[in-house]
Amino acid sequence: MTGFVSFVSSGPGDPELLTLKAVDRLKRADAVLFDDLSSGPILSHVRSGADLVGVGKRAGRPSPKQDHVSRLLVDYALEDQRVVRLKSGDSGVFGRLEEEITALRAAGIPYEVIPGVPSACAAAAAAGIPLTRRLTARRVQFVTGHDVTGALPEDLNIAALADAQATTVVFMGKRTFPKLAAILMEGGLPPETPAMMAEAVSTPDQSLHRSTVGDLARMLDGELSKAPALILYGALADPEMS
Amino acid sequence: MTGFVSFVSSGPGDPELLTLKAVDRLKRADAVLFDDLSSGPILSHVRSGADLVGVGKRAGRPSPKQDHVSRLLVDYALEDQRVVRLKSGDSGVFGRLEEEITALRAAGIPYEVIPGVPSACAAAAAAGIPLTRRLTARRVQFVTGHDVTGALPEDLNIAALADAQATTVVFMGKRTFPKLAAILMEGGLPPETPAMMAEAVSTPDQSLHRSTVGDLARMLDGELSKAPALILYGALADPEMS
Repeated sequence: MTGFVSFVSSGPGDPELLTLKAVDRLKRADAVLFDDLSSGPILSHVRSGADLVGVGKRAGRPSPKQDHVSRLLVDYALEDQRVVRLKSGDSGVFGRLEEEITALRAAGIPYEVIPGVPSACAAAAAAGIPLTRRLTARRVQFVTGHDVTGALPEDLNIAALADAQATTVVFMGKRTFPKLAAILMEGGLPPETPAMMAEAVSTPDQSLHRSTVGDLARMLDGELSKAPALILYGALADPEMS
Repeated sequence: MTGFVSFVSSGPGDPELLTLKAVDRLKRADAVLFDDLSSGPILSHVRSGADLVGVGKRAGRPSPKQDHVSRLLVDYALEDQRVVRLKSGDSGVFGRLEEEITALRAAGIPYEVIPGVPSACAAAAAAGIPLTRRLTARRVQFVTGHDVTGALPEDLNIAALADAQATTVVFMGKRTFPKLAAILMEGGLPPETPAMMAEAVSTPDQSLHRSTVGDLARMLDGELSKAPALILYGALADPEMS
């Protein structure tokens, strides 16, 4: 069998933030399975004649299609195809990689994971700030703002998340942030902790909104949008560096 | 003034994990300031005639040269040069970006930050595992294993770090891991929590050593090496996916 699956991280959206290795795997693919979040220019590296298969999922909805995606990967590989499974950001960070890897392992299909630029790193870079600071922020954490039902996860580590000395990046947390912020402020996080909401990071539609945890929670109260957004908070979201 | 500084993240070491944007900035640079950790092939993108300036720092030692690096950046920019400041991994993650950015801001010099592939993401990818899992690991955190003196930082958030449900990646923590592990196990982290030590990630010398928190701490007891290593622990370092 010569079938092989490359999980390729496409980065935050800017096609220039693809790695050379990602471009190489796209060029050599017989089939590319991509999500809604992947942008068109990224797919322009795929050779004509290759299969382009959209298998998009959306934030806040359960994914009835997950089994279908895993089956497609297995089926293409069993036909001796070189398959690329494109994932936005870094595929290992909230990319639901484990379900597809488990399916490949069960079918005995070899695979590789190509890491990429996480959207959290791109958001900080776009704001011109680092995620860590040598003396004052020695921990950075990425968490998800929703569980499989779209609600705020219930098993939050409050002591970890209510820590203004760390930099925290909440993925897909736009709708649940008011509730999360209330829990964290009750847990001791100062409402005036600097915060930043980042949308469409590294794309022409990029928006960076600087605020505080308390103010951002008020602004997002009643928010219904399921558009992906990153919310950063902690010392590092402060626009003044030192 | 046309001087400009690009902080360019070079990724974990594999030159194929450079982004297209990083390659572009290297090609257009008049001067490139790089650390010891950057590998030769990455610098091959720099045009002949550009200045290549090694400003390496080593783990576990104070950095008397930091002021010198900032001054070099400012001086090159004031001479209207396009300067690349190359940083390994993602420059925003333990890249000490803030000191150099502060110097540029003080001198009124424009800059940009090009994000890259963090070595933590590359380590997980090399092991074929994700850093998060949908139902069981919704938080991933990166921490540093030493402060400016090379010792384990004293202001650790034990509740955050002793959490086996999160994936934790300790940067530069080889020497201090036995002490850290003792504190975390006393704080409730099970000694049998899966752990992995990753060295020279994404390079031909890459080594991945799977273990547990307790066993790895015993193995590293008395370790004197200052070689950079990543230590991952948590549910995700488990070789069996599901």
